[in-house]
Amino acid sequence: MYRTHTCGELNINHAGKNVTLSGWVQKSRGLGGMTFVDLRDRYGITQLVFNMEKDGELCRKARKLGREYVIQITGNVAERSNKNLKLPTGEIEILVDTLHVLNSSEVPPFTIETETDGGDELRMKYRYLDLRRQVIRKNLELRHRMAMEIRNYLSGENFIEVETPVLIKSTPEGARDFVVPSRMNPGQFYALPQSPQTFKQLLMVAGFDKYFQIVKCFRDEDLRADRQPEFTQIDCEMSFVDRDNLLDAFEGLSNHLFRSIMGVEINDKYPRMPYDEALRKFGSDKPDTRFGMEIKDLKEHTEGKGFQVFDSAEYVSGIVATGCADYSRKQLDELTDYVKKPQIGTRGLVYVKYNEAGTFKSSVDKFYSPDDLQKWADAMGAAPGDLMLILAGETESTRKALGELRLEMGRKLNLMDPKAYRPLWVVDFPLLEWDEETNRYYAMHHPFTRPYEEDLELFDSDPGKVRAKAYDLVINGVEIGGGSIRIHNEDLQQKMFDNLGFTREEAAKQFGFLMGAFRYGAPPHGGIAFGFDRWVALFAGLDSIRDTIAFPKNNAGRDVMIDSPSSIAEEQLEELFLEVKKEELKKIETRTSGRKQ
Amino acid sequence: MYRTHTCGELNINHAGKNVTLSGWVQKSRGLGGMTFVDLRDRYGITQLVFNMEKDGELCRKARKLGREYVIQITGNVAERSNKNLKLPTGEIEILVDTLHVLNSSEVPPFTIETETDGGDELRMKYRYLDLRRQVIRKNLELRHRMAMEIRNYLSGENFIEVETPVLIKSTPEGARDFVVPSRMNPGQFYALPQSPQTFKQLLMVAGFDKYFQIVKCFRDEDLRADRQPEFTQIDCEMSFVDRDNLLDAFEGLSNHLFRSIMGVEINDKYPRMPYDEALRKFGSDKPDTRFGMEIKDLKEHTEGKGFQVFDSAEYVSGIVATGCADYSRKQLDELTDYVKKPQIGTRGLVYVKYNEAGTFKSSVDKFYSPDDLQKWADAMGAAPGDLMLILAGETESTRKALGELRLEMGRKLNLMDPKAYRPLWVVDFPLLEWDEETNRYYAMHHPFTRPYEEDLELFDSDPGKVRAKAYDLVINGVEIGGGSIRIHNEDLQQKMFDNLGFTREEAAKQFGFLMGAFRYGAPPHGGIAFGFDRWVALFAGLDSIRDTIAFPKNNAGRDVMIDSPSSIAEEQLEELFLEVKKEELKKIETRTSGRKQ
Repeated sequence: MYRTHTCGELNINHAGKNVTLSGWVQKSRGLGGMTFVDLRDRYGITQLVFNMEKDGELCRKARKLGREYVIQITGNVAERSNKNLKLPTGEIEILVDTLHVLNSSEVPPFTIETETDGGDELRMKYRYLDLRRQVIRKNLELRHRMAMEIRNYLSGENFIEVETPVLIKSTPEGARDFVVPSRMNPGQFYALPQSPQTFKQLLMVAGFDKYFQIVKCFRDEDLRADRQPEFTQIDCEMSFVDRDNLLDAFEGLSNHLFRSIMGVEINDKYPRMPYDEALRKFGSDKPDTRFGMEIKDLKEHTEGKGFQVFDSAEYVSGIVATGCADYSRKQLDELTDYVKKPQIGTRGLVYVKYNEAGTFKSSVDKFYSPDDLQKWADAMGAAPGDLMLILAGETESTRKALGELRLEMGRKLNLMDPKAYRPLWVVDFPLLEWDEETNRYYAMHHPFTRPYEEDLELFDSDPGKVRAKAYDLVINGVEIGGGSIRIHNEDLQQKMFDNLGFTREEAAKQFGFLMGAFRYGAPPHGGIAFGFDRWVALFAGLDSIRDTIAFPKNNAGRDVMIDSPSSIAEEQLEELFLEVKKEELKKIETRTSGRKQ
Repeated sequence: MYRTHTCGELNINHAGKNVTLSGWVQKSRGLGGMTFVDLRDRYGITQLVFNMEKDGELCRKARKLGREYVIQITGNVAERSNKNLKLPTGEIEILVDTLHVLNSSEVPPFTIETETDGGDELRMKYRYLDLRRQVIRKNLELRHRMAMEIRNYLSGENFIEVETPVLIKSTPEGARDFVVPSRMNPGQFYALPQSPQTFKQLLMVAGFDKYFQIVKCFRDEDLRADRQPEFTQIDCEMSFVDRDNLLDAFEGLSNHLFRSIMGVEINDKYPRMPYDEALRKFGSDKPDTRFGMEIKDLKEHTEGKGFQVFDSAEYVSGIVATGCADYSRKQLDELTDYVKKPQIGTRGLVYVKYNEAGTFKSSVDKFYSPDDLQKWADAMGAAPGDLMLILAGETESTRKALGELRLEMGRKLNLMDPKAYRPLWVVDFPLLEWDEETNRYYAMHHPFTRPYEEDLELFDSDPGKVRAKAYDLVINGVEIGGGSIRIHNEDLQQKMFDNLGFTREEAAKQFGFLMGAFRYGAPPHGGIAFGFDRWVALFAGLDSIRDTIAFPKNNAGRDVMIDSPSSIAEEQLEELFLEVKKEELKKIETRTSGRKQ
């Protein structure tokens, strides 16, 4: 028996009890003839006391303990004279009788504390030590509690969790697949799922009615800051629902998580904002609605005054930064630099200060009179003391830039209360997206998304205008999930593939099984998938999903702890009838290393 | 709104209510001027009534409905005159007002009934229709309920579910890995986990204390009858436990599942039977203890009477088939044929009938007197009326054959009550297993298993005798799970790798991260993994795990529904710097097709 109690369990009610504890040495300190050791496990920290006078040998043994040694002790629970009321165990200590070293430890490469001196690279290499830090472990505990709440809630709502296969089939649509060579079917490959999309639709055809799964998905993408090659989805699908039934059902899940995990009661129904409106008002399809500062159109008020930049621009709009009329030259320059960053990509920023005195000062005073600027202020709802910030250019990109500027101002003015949660649904996404490079339409969501019936006639005349029954759940500017009502009849699915430029043969080869399934009584259905890592990050207050994952990969897709991926034995490749093209690889490597020198 | 109620929900209390239902046409029949349609969904079946006199057009429309059409109706709930008390909805029917066909269906390739006319191949190709059959869906519902109970139980016991990575590192020890080429690290490969073994041990080093995960694992094996390339484990690990702490903890889980899912109360502690005893008494390391019929050693009682077969045999043992002394020549021949089957592989069977009259009749009367046979009967505990069945030969294989014969007799005599559950732990497995072919020892369980301290000295003298702190959970002859207390210090782990013939370099390359972790305060720990598919199959009363899985693969590792694995685009291979060796592949294919002709 290694322990009678954990290190987080003992309190004043246990005083006088003989106990056995096991755990890690967090730290130890001598004080006169006494040695104090903080013993740590997942559940807490308990103070151990060794007394030189009482047992010199034992105390000397205790003094030799290093940080992170694993020890087992027996002793008696005693009330502390010097209580620490911040700890649940802070009223007691253990007067130790026996000490047994279960395992020693080298000095860890970084301190196992909430504030550590370990850099990212080192933390990832020794992730098993990093995970000992309470601040990281708490994220994983939160993740577990969220998964439990999600499963219990959905199961209570009659959803069945069904495991769909991991070894599936590669499809060129969407992101790049990871593939898995098959030894039993040499020359052929499985693919790892980017999502269980087709399987959950087949489960609806199978009459499962309500499905969910918390499931690993895979994308072989060049990893940007906050992407992982394997990530986790809360994947859901329902039959016999229209869009609003479905949104209501998952508002229920979201509200349950807010309530049970965060103790936050969301009383209002989530706004359902059309995609067009989100872009128009917030310059983003994932608006952060914790603050207003909506985008206002100024095009009609700016024309014909000789300012070429505005006159020639397709789009002229601005936002009002309340109470910022006193911004300095330096502050305004910073904002200009911000919008000119390559990621934002505008050519410049026009500002108008609406001074407290009612006068105007702007960067376009040469072209616009105070009366003109008053009209702008009226159109934008600006008041004396406010600062108007205006961008102009091509509609889509400028609107997005203005959305970014809005967020930047929100951050500067502390308008994003981290304790406030403003969930909303963005709805009515376009069905198709034009790609200039390949000169064709792509499905904005995926090829199984149902268009609005009333937009079907646009399919031939103006496909880009066809709206989809698609929706995203957005919380505080973060896209937490997305989904759609699906196509459930073969004809419409075929038409969709036609519009996406699939030949009939390609469509049949890749998705024939789904089209076939639609012939045997497919019910109307729809679904949604939430990014579980991201939802955990949101609730944990993390910017990145990485620390919601026990063993994440770095930006090169590597696990630096286990050193993977790695080369494999030649025999493994032979069994798979595969050859690594070493010559071509060498060329690449030479080129790369050449560049480095 | 597609429905106000499901098809399993309405009963006599809803009489008079107007409702909307959606579902599938299970069947329809005409009766005079009436048409009855059974409407089905996941929740049940509700009878719809169409009346020719009341609404001829509607009734004619209903008569055109085919099986598996998806329809939506509105109507009024009415008490049935002809009640079906076997159905929860059997007291009511719906007098239909409106009928809307949501989707039509072609005639399904097999009947969607509990007893179907569809063969295996067809069922798998149209798995989405197969899953509509209640008998299959029930298995998946059971699986879901079991997963929920497991998670809630373990979470209540302070276990945290942690997701471990799917893209890990290939290790040559154990079964064959599926590998995944990395595009970002060309020429290198990830591997899919055969189990999260090293990660769960690292979580213990990280102080997570109690971990579990219901997780997909992967093995690229030539598939025997009841294996799948991807399968699901209930993977668990605990710190600061010895073997009996751990077995007690998971007896708790098992008892909880029996109670909550099967309504069965297991009152006794599970027997803990050493591996040696299991083999000696039952000829198997997964004994079915629902019945006795233990193996008895006869070697000493058979020697020196001139029967060469027994005298030269290393092992002579038998079982007693109670009350079978009257077995006919034909029945005995059948048993002889059974033990001579290649899978059993013995050369013959000796029988001794202990007749009701107290006389003996045996196949070795020439060599043994009635007095000799009486001694056998005494040694085996046989009584008049019983049949003794005896095998002789090399110990290991003959013992296994006798174990199989015991099971065969158990089946013949109906001694395996399907409603009785006899869980037990088989413990003290050998640490190492000698492999004649490669002339070396292999870890019987895996290289992280902890040997008994008192056996450590045998490591040098007789490694095959070293016992491991390993254990299996066996229920009714089925191995449901297995695990071990692990090695947690670097020296012992190194010694283990040495004994398995790893060079220091190989060990460091493959498991250096784990050995490294042991340097920083690894706690004593151990764990277990249960075969979730198999446990579901046991509770569902299925012989095979296949119908516990929504979308299983066939014996060639193929998903015949989606037709996977399949070839992939040449560009995909190029990006991975891989080449399929087409020439060599062709040779194989020619040879294979040649063989078929």
